[in-house]
Amino acid sequence: MTVNHQIRLAARPVGMPKRSDWSFTEEPVKQAGANEVLVKVLYLSLDPAMRGWMNEGRSYIPPVELGAVMRAGAAGKVIASNHSGFVVGDYVTGGFGVQEYALSNGKDLIKVDPRVAPLPVFLGTLGMPGMTAYFGLLDIGQPKEGETVVVSGAAGAVGTVVGQIAKIKGCRVVGIAGGQDKCRWIVDDLGFDAAIDYKHEDVAAMLKQHCPKGVDVYFDNVGGEILDLVLARLARNARIVICGAISQYNNTSPVQGPRNYLALLVNRAMMKGMVVFDYADRYHLAAREMAGWMAQGALKARTDLREGLENFPEALLQLFRGENTGKLVLKIADDA
Amino acid sequence: MTVNHQIRLAARPVGMPKRSDWSFTEEPVKQAGANEVLVKVLYLSLDPAMRGWMNEGRSYIPPVELGAVMRAGAAGKVIASNHSGFVVGDYVTGGFGVQEYALSNGKDLIKVDPRVAPLPVFLGTLGMPGMTAYFGLLDIGQPKEGETVVVSGAAGAVGTVVGQIAKIKGCRVVGIAGGQDKCRWIVDDLGFDAAIDYKHEDVAAMLKQHCPKGVDVYFDNVGGEILDLVLARLARNARIVICGAISQYNNTSPVQGPRNYLALLVNRAMMKGMVVFDYADRYHLAAREMAGWMAQGALKARTDLREGLENFPEALLQLFRGENTGKLVLKIADDA
Repeated sequence: MTVNHQIRLAARPVGMPKRSDWSFTEEPVKQAGANEVLVKVLYLSLDPAMRGWMNEGRSYIPPVELGAVMRAGAAGKVIASNHSGFVVGDYVTGGFGVQEYALSNGKDLIKVDPRVAPLPVFLGTLGMPGMTAYFGLLDIGQPKEGETVVVSGAAGAVGTVVGQIAKIKGCRVVGIAGGQDKCRWIVDDLGFDAAIDYKHEDVAAMLKQHCPKGVDVYFDNVGGEILDLVLARLARNARIVICGAISQYNNTSPVQGPRNYLALLVNRAMMKGMVVFDYADRYHLAAREMAGWMAQGALKARTDLREGLENFPEALLQLFRGENTGKLVLKIADDA
Repeated sequence: MTVNHQIRLAARPVGMPKRSDWSFTEEPVKQAGANEVLVKVLYLSLDPAMRGWMNEGRSYIPPVELGAVMRAGAAGKVIASNHSGFVVGDYVTGGFGVQEYALSNGKDLIKVDPRVAPLPVFLGTLGMPGMTAYFGLLDIGQPKEGETVVVSGAAGAVGTVVGQIAKIKGCRVVGIAGGQDKCRWIVDDLGFDAAIDYKHEDVAAMLKQHCPKGVDVYFDNVGGEILDLVLARLARNARIVICGAISQYNNTSPVQGPRNYLALLVNRAMMKGMVVFDYADRYHLAAREMAGWMAQGALKARTDLREGLENFPEALLQLFRGENTGKLVLKIADDA
């Protein structure tokens, strides 16, 4: 009998989550039933959205119930299958949760090919964050050649992809990130035109310097003060993609609304929210195009790897403190 | 020699304007030069946007300079013309300013036909407020039959037109206005499906009651708390038209940003600003269609008339206190 270690939601956090908001449980690994597969989880995705899933109340998906295994995207390997679509040895991604083994009925299971990219990349650039960047930027932001695109959370899983796709589309790209190392990396390695270190620089002044013609597309991952500063620099007919607001997720006070939202009026600008799930029927097209860009070297993926299921709470906190560069992934097991 | 009484901007107001923010001057009426017309101003338009024009700093149009005649839309009669496009006796609207006589080079002068509607209506339903309602609702809001449309400032010059056009398009229409009289009027006389009296009712509870399937289109004239409450009731794929924010124009503290803006994300909703001037090349089409609706009785116009150039400051304050029902117009002179 093999043990399945699990991390379950124990309490709804107030502000920043703490280790005691989860319980650490174990149970025997279950057998795959009819039309089911058993997956050994290898890599766990750490995403800003996880914070929202821990709150009570309906959002775009229901919250994680107290006592339930914490929801998480993950990549793994099929180790038993009673499903005609999967065989032992297949690599898959899906919502396996924070645990070592997961059963699946095959729905929402995506087969991935580790010859295309290392497995963790299917949780980042070729996974949900990459899809979010691709559809948010191209469908909502609709950047045109020569326009100025600004992205916040620019060194994160979504932001890195947004900036690189915007470069592929011929835009001037300015990334906002925390710390000199991240800023240097997105310019030197990823080809952004400029980076603004919001922890050490005057963001308003730097936006003015790096976006002399204003901001045509802003892809917002952070909300808060930075959203307000970008609103103050909008170009006529600008588009703002509201993808997330990581600066606000652990607030104990109400969300800070964008005080400069009337810049939308003055500039005839648009602000639109997006949820990546809406684009599910086109994921395969985006993945194919992005894999092509990766093969050409135009799109680089970086995984920031941590290890150990038991370190899940700390790893998630590192995400909220902005301590990752690239896609933050927790390695759960060796692929043996 | 005839005297032209004028009201000029004397100081940039802090908070609510006061009478001393203007100076009352007079000068001889000027003669029409080559290619000019002289207009006798009959009716002055009082608009929320006037407050913004009094502030320093660039917006969608430059501010009124200190010492300049206060900017205002107006309707009048040509009393002298050296312009081939206009003859004495023509009725016209234009940006004549807060004064009794204005010279014009004919640009931006719109000839209007008082047989179609009383002259003040060309400052309201068939003027800029009507155009704002028409293009904001139809081009940006894009209401579909059976959808729920909410409009704030619903008893004002723009809001009345928004609600009536939404009804013409087969929508469920809920208006938000201040006071029982206004609320009764927009339902009983204008055909709104429901009204919410924000001064005396629980707006959140009433929105829930009157918009059981959520809000598909919100046309926002007021900003502030009401914008936040509507954000909390959005339907999937909702559209918010940011037309104005009269609740914030006289703030001495920073504008209140919409704390619930992340509802845009959850609901994949859009918020877009608009400035009516962008639609100038289609004004004539909108005016023709709206005149048709008026002739059919589907679109009613109501003018709230005040009198006397010298009462301009008080009339403008009445606008900001929401004391008007329908389009607030200041009568300057008899059509003699």
